[in-house]
Amino acid sequence: MTESDPLLYHVDGDLVPASEATVSVDDRGFRYGDAAFETCRAYGGTIFAWDAHADRLARTCEALSLDHGLSADDLRARIDETLAANGLEDAYVRLSITRGIQPGKLDPRPEVDPTVVIYVTPLPRGGTAGESVWDEPATVRTVETRRIPDAAIPAAAKTHNYLNGILARAELRGTDADEALVRDLDGNVAEGATSNLWFVREGTLHTPTTDGPVLPGITRAIVRELAAEAGIPVQEGAYAVADVRAADEAFLTNRTWELRPIASLDGGAIGGGPVTDRLSRLYDERVERTCYE
Amino acid sequence: MTESDPLLYHVDGDLVPASEATVSVDDRGFRYGDAAFETCRAYGGTIFAWDAHADRLARTCEALSLDHGLSADDLRARIDETLAANGLEDAYVRLSITRGIQPGKLDPRPEVDPTVVIYVTPLPRGGTAGESVWDEPATVRTVETRRIPDAAIPAAAKTHNYLNGILARAELRGTDADEALVRDLDGNVAEGATSNLWFVREGTLHTPTTDGPVLPGITRAIVRELAAEAGIPVQEGAYAVADVRAADEAFLTNRTWELRPIASLDGGAIGGGPVTDRLSRLYDERVERTCYE
Repeated sequence: MTESDPLLYHVDGDLVPASEATVSVDDRGFRYGDAAFETCRAYGGTIFAWDAHADRLARTCEALSLDHGLSADDLRARIDETLAANGLEDAYVRLSITRGIQPGKLDPRPEVDPTVVIYVTPLPRGGTAGESVWDEPATVRTVETRRIPDAAIPAAAKTHNYLNGILARAELRGTDADEALVRDLDGNVAEGATSNLWFVREGTLHTPTTDGPVLPGITRAIVRELAAEAGIPVQEGAYAVADVRAADEAFLTNRTWELRPIASLDGGAIGGGPVTDRLSRLYDERVERTCYE
Repeated sequence: MTESDPLLYHVDGDLVPASEATVSVDDRGFRYGDAAFETCRAYGGTIFAWDAHADRLARTCEALSLDHGLSADDLRARIDETLAANGLEDAYVRLSITRGIQPGKLDPRPEVDPTVVIYVTPLPRGGTAGESVWDEPATVRTVETRRIPDAAIPAAAKTHNYLNGILARAELRGTDADEALVRDLDGNVAEGATSNLWFVREGTLHTPTTDGPVLPGITRAIVRELAAEAGIPVQEGAYAVADVRAADEAFLTNRTWELRPIASLDGGAIGGGPVTDRLSRLYDERVERTCYE
């Protein structure tokens, strides 16, 4: 693939140029955001932690009572086909499954003819010889928009209903911040609009518990595992914004960013540090070993 | 238009057969449900209470920081054009405006090239000489899914993020119910998945206050006005499910159903009655006078 070739997306079994990739306006994914998705990352042609993505997607679909009938292998094959058709080895990959078109209005029907869309975008190489997708550490501000409680929509479900995060990000207009820190209804910190939050205090790594409205991030799970292997104590809990502000180090994680230090929160400097650096290196090594060797 | 003609939708300025009406998979309306909508009803070729719809749409777009740059007259003209092209006088009309395609990921940009979609579906005539779109009074069950609090997404914003209502309706599978009664996080009744709730007790009409997470329905506002004109006392407040169960009459309102009696709630019979009947008649008369005379 050269610079001038258009990207190909995979829509309902066909590879189509991104600019021509469409869904019906009657698709429930469009009408209601009635769809599940995963953001994956391909390193050297391999989807990192695919099993974890397939598992979380299955849990999302279960939460939505969306029985799409497709196997994880089928979905993976569509992703691999899309990467190959684009000649991409290192890429952002988004996999969306909607409930498709159904008769009637809002009621979800058990019989589903799903719409499957695979999006890809080139990314730089990852791993120990790679580079970050972000240019600078994150500048974060606490916003007023609160996370949707599990009783309304389970946070563990990763869906096309993303307005809560958009409202959070919209609050950053006119500020220098590029990520929003979102609290739950009780005022405890939950996560960023598209990232999980971590901070280090006196050598211990802290992250908000998924008992609250926090996405069980796959990068989050891997960082937790890497910390445990490295003997870094990890605590999950309920924290105030002040706890993060007073931290020695803080960083965000998501699939694309991997680990991204927080330069400042609400104008107060925090930054990364030795624990953040060490975990970033361990993460890169894991990617290198799993995907490039 | 004859039975065999396909319906035409209006997509981004063009009339297209419904089966060919699409949006880009990169449209934020699809990726994130980042879109506002209104459900309107045409009676005799006229959109009932258009000004109220245009006002609420503007408030939704303001809540989403979605400055689409289109006038209410422009939007109305697209609706009228769609009705005329389909030869429809009595119809369900859905108007959706998305934030379109934008560079980058989640952050909403101020410069918007919106996607506008008008959906239509034939409905029977309304007014005093008309018929109901529903066959039977509603069978309602209280569900566990709670309404999203205003602090997370304002209930006054009518958006494509409709999973909360879908999860509520999904809970009805395997029951005899066709509408879900959704409570707020405190346990007070809020509304149906797609309807506002009303009940009558000792001659007074009650409906949950929009101080809670309740959509400010346009049919709701009209029913409130009709009740005031007819000298029926109306109270807005915070109510328990038990208050509704103990009511003398209960009904639901939305644009399509108009007023629909509640046959039963959680298996206990309620039904309509003289107040419901009177308000239904007043509503029909308002529609007849406004749209058919």
